[in-house]
Amino acid sequence: VVSEAFVTLCTSDAYVIGACVLGHSLRRTKTEKMLVCIVTKSLSPENRQQITDVFDQVEEVDELDSGDVANLSLLQRPELGITFTKIQAWKLTQFSKCVFLDADTLVLGNVDELFEKGEFAAAPDVGWPDCFNSGVFVFTPSNTTFSEILALSKTTGSFDGGDQGLLNAYYSNWSSSDATRRLSFVYNMTANASYGYAPAYQRFKDDVKILHFIGSHKPWHGMPQPGPGSTAIVQLFEKWWRVHDD
Amino acid sequence: VVSEAFVTLCTSDAYVIGACVLGHSLRRTKTEKMLVCIVTKSLSPENRQQITDVFDQVEEVDELDSGDVANLSLLQRPELGITFTKIQAWKLTQFSKCVFLDADTLVLGNVDELFEKGEFAAAPDVGWPDCFNSGVFVFTPSNTTFSEILALSKTTGSFDGGDQGLLNAYYSNWSSSDATRRLSFVYNMTANASYGYAPAYQRFKDDVKILHFIGSHKPWHGMPQPGPGSTAIVQLFEKWWRVHDD
Ligand SMILES: O=c1ccn([C@@H]2O[C@H](COP(=O)(O)OP(=O)(O)O)[C@@H](O)[C@H]2O)c(=O)[nH]1
Ligand SMILES: O=c1ccn([C@@H]2O[C@H](COP(=O)(O)OP(=O)(O)O)[C@@H](O)[C@H]2O)c(=O)[nH]1
Ligand SMILES: [Mn+2]
Ligand SMILES: [Mn+2]
Repeated sequence: VVSEAFVTLCTSDAYVIGACVLGHSLRRTKTEKMLVCIVTKSLSPENRQQITDVFDQVEEVDELDSGDVANLSLLQRPELGITFTKIQAWKLTQFSKCVFLDADTLVLGNVDELFEKGEFAAAPDVGWPDCFNSGVFVFTPSNTTFSEILALSKTTGSFDGGDQGLLNAYYSNWSSSDATRRLSFVYNMTANASYGYAPAYQRFKDDVKILHFIGSHKPWHGMPQPGPGSTAIVQLFEKWWRVHDD
Repeated sequence: VVSEAFVTLCTSDAYVIGACVLGHSLRRTKTEKMLVCIVTKSLSPENRQQITDVFDQVEEVDELDSGDVANLSLLQRPELGITFTKIQAWKLTQFSKCVFLDADTLVLGNVDELFEKGEFAAAPDVGWPDCFNSGVFVFTPSNTTFSEILALSKTTGSFDGGDQGLLNAYYSNWSSSDATRRLSFVYNMTANASYGYAPAYQRFKDDVKILHFIGSHKPWHGMPQPGPGSTAIVQLFEKWWRVHDD
């Protein structure tokens, strides 16, 4: 039996709409994998029910928080300490392989081929591309891995105060590992890339399979302010809203 | 005998100061490799002499220009068609291996270890990291490769109108090739990365070996305007000026 799952995380009411739209976007791709959402006690009963309606399995876990104010302020995202909860995904040992997706991602087509990649696979972060972006990754659940990452979170901590710095510290040889560990950027196109290198975006945008709406302004907060690249961002936000309204 | 060289390009008077400071920065690293500058007829005699004073070898080549106004305007850099001249570097067949460096790069420490990488090796571009940045790359001169890239420039052209789009079209499997083809970002740290992912910059900045001042505002144009990340950029510009004034 296949025991593979897409996994997302929702630790707060503010991300429920993101998780649900992501779940819908996956259903539209006719994926054969299970859809799992990790939640914490902090969700309201109504929101918890919404999650249950979309996902095959809802896993309640304890909150983990970095409490690392200094590094989070460097990131200008004080709210992201809670993303340490993401590492609880490694405890889903009922599955042989999983693909983690942030609740602010949107799947545009079937991506079941991601399960052919090995643990640990991720796409580069456009901010510092020797690091991977931790919004999309392929992993193998393992209590040992979970314990090791948890231990590292207590000894070394995270250089950005969130899960991305922690996971990059744990998988620190990612950038020098082979191609099976690297996902193409089309599996984690951070929406700001639409204006970072415009000719490449024009050239490759039709290949994009997963959009990732990084930053504090999410599609469910409304359209972005006019500014550099906002035309392209508006178009990407509209893709999210089309799935939302479907 | 070892016949390996660092190679840069200077097609216009405006980049002479950049090429000379790069050359100085390489000398300070006590490199054992040759220093070569590719030039065109358009340099003034005084500027040509300045280049000759710094580099071991000066190679005059014909200008190649993409003339691709549409794609260059997407890049907002109409002046970069001339960077097609860069592919003339593959004709330096007197060398068994070369490392190309843009004239707007600055070497901070000995990087002779780059010659251990195979053809073709480069670092990811932060705009679209499935593409490499063509400001720093390891290559093996070859008339065949030269002819193939030249032919591609005429049939397919460049998706960005400059050498980077052309070279990424030629080495189109770069992002899925193995680790020997990938350079760490510390060998081509584009200066804008200092504010893209600030915690990673803080964490890894002391490892940086080559700075790359991409964009139309180069260090020799004066200090950047105050703005997001300008404090870090000023510090990086100052590193360039310290070598300049040395
Ligand atoms: O209050 C929060 C903050 C984050 N998250 C989860 O952690 C992920 C990472 O946070 P975010 O996507 O906002 O970070 P970014 O991608 O902008 O760096 C989110 O997508 C959610 O899955 C959450 O559930 N509640
Ligand atoms: O008029 C020009 C434009 C470019 N170049 C060379 O081509 C490289 C690429 O251009 P640039 O570095 O300005 O592009 P960027 O790195 O900003 O994309 C330069 O570093 C120079 O080596 C040159 O010699 N003359
Ligand atoms: Mn995210
Ligand atoms: Mn350059």
